[in-house]
Amino acid sequence: MSEVRTKAGLAQQAAPVLNKLTTEQKNQALLSMADALIQRSAEIIQANAEDLQRGKEQGTSPSLLDRLALDESRIQGIAEGLRQIVELPDPVGDTLDTMDRPNGLSITKIRVPIGVIGIVYEARPNVTVDAAGLCLKSGNAVVLRGGSSAISSNKKIVEVLHDAMAATAIPKDALQLIEDTDRASVDEMLKLNGLLDVIIPRGGSSLIQNVVMNATVPVIETGAGICHTYLDQSADPVMAEQISLNAKVQRPSVCNSMETLLVHADFAAQHLAGLLEKFREQQVEIRGDEATKGYASWALSASPEDYATEYNDYVLNVRIVNNLDEAIEHIADYGTKHSECIVSASSENASRFIQEVDAAAVYHNASTRFTDGFEFGFGAEIGISTQKLHARGPMGLPALTSTKYIVSGSGQIRQ
Amino acid sequence: MSEVRTKAGLAQQAAPVLNKLTTEQKNQALLSMADALIQRSAEIIQANAEDLQRGKEQGTSPSLLDRLALDESRIQGIAEGLRQIVELPDPVGDTLDTMDRPNGLSITKIRVPIGVIGIVYEARPNVTVDAAGLCLKSGNAVVLRGGSSAISSNKKIVEVLHDAMAATAIPKDALQLIEDTDRASVDEMLKLNGLLDVIIPRGGSSLIQNVVMNATVPVIETGAGICHTYLDQSADPVMAEQISLNAKVQRPSVCNSMETLLVHADFAAQHLAGLLEKFREQQVEIRGDEATKGYASWALSASPEDYATEYNDYVLNVRIVNNLDEAIEHIADYGTKHSECIVSASSENASRFIQEVDAAAVYHNASTRFTDGFEFGFGAEIGISTQKLHARGPMGLPALTSTKYIVSGSGQIRQ
Repeated sequence: MSEVRTKAGLAQQAAPVLNKLTTEQKNQALLSMADALIQRSAEIIQANAEDLQRGKEQGTSPSLLDRLALDESRIQGIAEGLRQIVELPDPVGDTLDTMDRPNGLSITKIRVPIGVIGIVYEARPNVTVDAAGLCLKSGNAVVLRGGSSAISSNKKIVEVLHDAMAATAIPKDALQLIEDTDRASVDEMLKLNGLLDVIIPRGGSSLIQNVVMNATVPVIETGAGICHTYLDQSADPVMAEQISLNAKVQRPSVCNSMETLLVHADFAAQHLAGLLEKFREQQVEIRGDEATKGYASWALSASPEDYATEYNDYVLNVRIVNNLDEAIEHIADYGTKHSECIVSASSENASRFIQEVDAAAVYHNASTRFTDGFEFGFGAEIGISTQKLHARGPMGLPALTSTKYIVSGSGQIRQ
Repeated sequence: MSEVRTKAGLAQQAAPVLNKLTTEQKNQALLSMADALIQRSAEIIQANAEDLQRGKEQGTSPSLLDRLALDESRIQGIAEGLRQIVELPDPVGDTLDTMDRPNGLSITKIRVPIGVIGIVYEARPNVTVDAAGLCLKSGNAVVLRGGSSAISSNKKIVEVLHDAMAATAIPKDALQLIEDTDRASVDEMLKLNGLLDVIIPRGGSSLIQNVVMNATVPVIETGAGICHTYLDQSADPVMAEQISLNAKVQRPSVCNSMETLLVHADFAAQHLAGLLEKFREQQVEIRGDEATKGYASWALSASPEDYATEYNDYVLNVRIVNNLDEAIEHIADYGTKHSECIVSASSENASRFIQEVDAAAVYHNASTRFTDGFEFGFGAEIGISTQKLHARGPMGLPALTSTKYIVSGSGQIRQ
């Protein structure tokens, strides 16, 4: 039997054991795992050095190597992440609904673990610990399939976690790492209906698209964010500048950063020239429509393709619109339903924008950069769902649960 | 462009219009649609006669023809179903959560329509109206793809509904019927990512499996039910008999009926011979393990394959187990996580069964036949989800919604 199938089967067998554990037992195990990561950080750093060495030989870019690199401080951060998961309320067993039926049946809807969760991800080895911690805390077994660039780090990390788990109530089999980093091992995971209950991809858009288009196991799609900020006619100019700059440059590489700025023509006439200068000072390349170029001769021309591109970089599309409808229409045409913002002093326009824009998170007078499990107060994040089923937007622990109806009777039969 | 793509595109364009309607506007439209069905029932019956005639020519079984047939009274029932949907609370706009963040951001999670829902179904034309009503009430556009056997009825019904909608606030394009009943039209729907937000299959297991295994659009899996009833050592014999007979024979053809009866050896010794006689009186064929055959010489032998079969018929597997663990294990091995029941006077055993059995609905001392949106008090049912994502168990109107986070600020930016 293949590695993937064998390990998914072991995870499935471990899931019912995990399901029965108390919050205390799970927390105890997570704390042991956190301690072990710190105690054995030297081993982890040594394994990580192999990944870095291989990466250098393969010509990996310095920025990717930096994301891959682990040191004492980063490992402490990762362990601290596990301890934060311990602090979070355990969603398993929560009562979501109770219904007393006329026939005397008492129906209770409670949260239960999903079962076995597959995570397909890239580079950063912190995801290994983070995803394991979130899945285990929510009572799920987890099958991790990380990328080849971090495989030495991932193997060592899971070895350390497994050793720590041996003395805890969580069975080691509840945490599985697929060591085969061939593309075929992902393809096999995607079809493991009956063994995996869900697959969550974390990574770039090609990884996510491969999972979405080829999985027969249910998927929670995450990631792609072509986010817009619309500066309404009535926008406060200072707020408009602060929010749009923040949405673009505070961390351009992430999914909740802004890719396109939509500007009402009247606002543009008064403030756009100055605003574009601010972007220029921040080294942001501007791709604008013809009207925009009237306010910044140095701007490039934006093509329809540009409007459909998630740059994740210091590049910004700018388009001038004549009214709110044009802005909403542009977002419907080019958005990815992730995070969209209106800056406006008009509560009427804000309400229309909030109602009519279809996205996981719609903002009025705040930066789209806040779409994040920590910023939303969930205390954790397994990803940001960009699909409409199951979970939408930042996903905390409850997104890793399913439900069960418990029906208690006294002999009721159906007439 | 193909019919499927064209109609899905029209539905997608109609969705935002529908999204903006008030509950009152949607209800008004549904009432007009109900009235039209009754006013034009003669036309519908005439179209239905074409389906019946074609079915007869093709040798369709009398029971299937009966399910397909429409008369005045059935059409009144279908119209009444629409009126019942009008009475249901509209989930759209419901506030699910509010969070006030330390930085002053106010975050509200509200219910929104999913968008465009594809329904792939078989035979019965009542599904056409029922699914349309539920989707439209919850603010979703819907693309229906029924089977060839009911195509004349379905076309006429949708014509009648469309004519009625013309004078209402719901755009006609929000309801689409795919008239091409070739298998290829289903296959095309399954890959319409970006146009369809979800596909819900309703029908037999081969239809559902085709959808699950080939869709790249997210799916809500419904249907397959291999349901068990476990008679514990302490079960009340009268209750055990009533519940197990009801679970099997009250309506064997549906997914929440029982396929396998598990019996504790001690209970079997005292009561199984008599109980099996009752099943025999109801024309139920028994397939038992060796121990069961000791109580009913006329019983056939059950194979492992039998335990994995959803008969939907007057056939029942019976297996004797030595303890609760064996019962739970059998259910884990053969169940489809639909509905499972323990009959027991021991609250300890009931608790363990409820906790450890992984199913959408777990029953203590009541028939599994209650797994149903109406019986659960939802007032409607678009299907029974047997997957763990998004919705599990009977799905009412809220299962046809997604969520949106509304984030209101006063200029907050991320540090």
